[in-house]
Amino acid sequence: MNKHIGFIGLGIMGKPMALNLLKAGFNLTVNDLNKESVNTLVEAGAKEGTSAEMGTECDVVITMLPASQHVKQVVLGENGLLTTAKKGLIIIDMSSISPVVSVEIADEAATYGVEMLDAPVSGGEVKAIDGTLAIMVGGKETVFDSVKPILDAVGAEVTLVGKNGSGVTAKLANQIIVNLNIAAMSEALVLAAKAGIDVEKMYQAIRGGLAGSAVLDAKVPLILDRNFVAGGRIDINLKDMTNVMETAHDIGVPLPLSSQLVEIFHALKVDGKAADDHGGIVQYYEKLANVEVRKV
Amino acid sequence: MNKHIGFIGLGIMGKPMALNLLKAGFNLTVNDLNKESVNTLVEAGAKEGTSAEMGTECDVVITMLPASQHVKQVVLGENGLLTTAKKGLIIIDMSSISPVVSVEIADEAATYGVEMLDAPVSGGEVKAIDGTLAIMVGGKETVFDSVKPILDAVGAEVTLVGKNGSGVTAKLANQIIVNLNIAAMSEALVLAAKAGIDVEKMYQAIRGGLAGSAVLDAKVPLILDRNFVAGGRIDINLKDMTNVMETAHDIGVPLPLSSQLVEIFHALKVDGKAADDHGGIVQYYEKLANVEVRKV
Repeated sequence: MNKHIGFIGLGIMGKPMALNLLKAGFNLTVNDLNKESVNTLVEAGAKEGTSAEMGTECDVVITMLPASQHVKQVVLGENGLLTTAKKGLIIIDMSSISPVVSVEIADEAATYGVEMLDAPVSGGEVKAIDGTLAIMVGGKETVFDSVKPILDAVGAEVTLVGKNGSGVTAKLANQIIVNLNIAAMSEALVLAAKAGIDVEKMYQAIRGGLAGSAVLDAKVPLILDRNFVAGGRIDINLKDMTNVMETAHDIGVPLPLSSQLVEIFHALKVDGKAADDHGGIVQYYEKLANVEVRKV
Repeated sequence: MNKHIGFIGLGIMGKPMALNLLKAGFNLTVNDLNKESVNTLVEAGAKEGTSAEMGTECDVVITMLPASQHVKQVVLGENGLLTTAKKGLIIIDMSSISPVVSVEIADEAATYGVEMLDAPVSGGEVKAIDGTLAIMVGGKETVFDSVKPILDAVGAEVTLVGKNGSGVTAKLANQIIVNLNIAAMSEALVLAAKAGIDVEKMYQAIRGGLAGSAVLDAKVPLILDRNFVAGGRIDINLKDMTNVMETAHDIGVPLPLSSQLVEIFHALKVDGKAADDHGGIVQYYEKLANVEVRKV
């Protein structure tokens, strides 16, 4: 349990996760471009260090970064982890990146005797703070078992779903469902609104049946309040859905609805809605149908 | 409360609904092409009668029929209800038909001094038997109030959502969500399966989050068991989604994903899957991707 952990990427999700590792008693070295976040962690008991330093000092290095290129740079790049990594180091990439890139990094790490797990999270900032994230992990079972106590310190549901790349692919599968469920709800709401139906009453009538979902309960009240503050930003979900299509093409899975959703996200971005919550998908349909989903 | 009710259409849903009306103490006259179903109701205390007889004898006539043309024939056709209907008769059409046709029938009925409500149900055979259906109603509030005790005898959640046609439109909105949520789940499951992920573990990892839904919990276990016994048949849902597109075109609401789902249902029908449960949508994707979603 006395493992020395490196943590790279102290953003909205990474910072509370790193704080939870400190609380759990782990020895922590952190790194981020944002000095304020680093200082918060140092005040809480962490040490600041570079990726290269982590490569030699740490048993496990966690990366929690925005996109594929950032993880690639931190691990494979000049002054990256692999330039100094000792044999047996375990990298846990908890970012939501392309499975194609994730496997590429894992393969390259293996040639240095470095193990990798992809372990993206689901649950947002609230569950990151509470340490109750859902974590889907891809990689070797022995490696998973050896770092399970670390993942348990930041997550409530930690599941090994398959080999390297499976964690990020499962996260993409999750994103397909969430975003297409929002689009499904949007088609239903806009049709009903234009037909003059009281959509709030309709929502109450259908939410207990087979149409019920976490998306419906989370997003309908926000849409009726015209509240599109993210939450899950449209541009971030566009990145995810683009990774979905890259992966789908890579392994040979035609996904007609997901592919159309990429175009819908693009249209919303062009329309200036990139920073809106993905509940704002409804605005794409509202514009097409020239109607708004509102309380009556 | 001592209303005389006519009930036309004693199918899988109609028969238990009619039995619940008898249990609630209503005076009931029934009609169906299936003599066995009629006999069951007569043994339980109902009277057999024709549509024309119901027009003169009943205060309220409920129709529970497969599709638009059947309701049209029973109400507007030769020997139909309107040929004999007394002024003040209330027709409650509980079928899931085209909103365009529903409004057409209501308008024609109005010229005879006959009121109509569209009141389609959601919840399937089990809730029909239990008398706990969700019922979405379109029509005048005074008419709705006058028959509310009748609807309460067959439903648990009875909601007036708007004017004539709003009930069937709300039902279509419900069907959009259910069927697109199944398609969303299918794209996710097939991507994960082809990536070699343990989909059962993935399902457990994501079901508690924003991807969670009634569809996920109802259909994933059946898909993993390769059980596509309906339930909600693909051909019936194709009818619903065709009505969705007719209505959407009629009132001016472009629905790109629903429109694509009509084609997916058509493809499944061509492939001999018309009688399968709509959970069988996954088979469309499995065929495209040449993989099966199974327990590992």
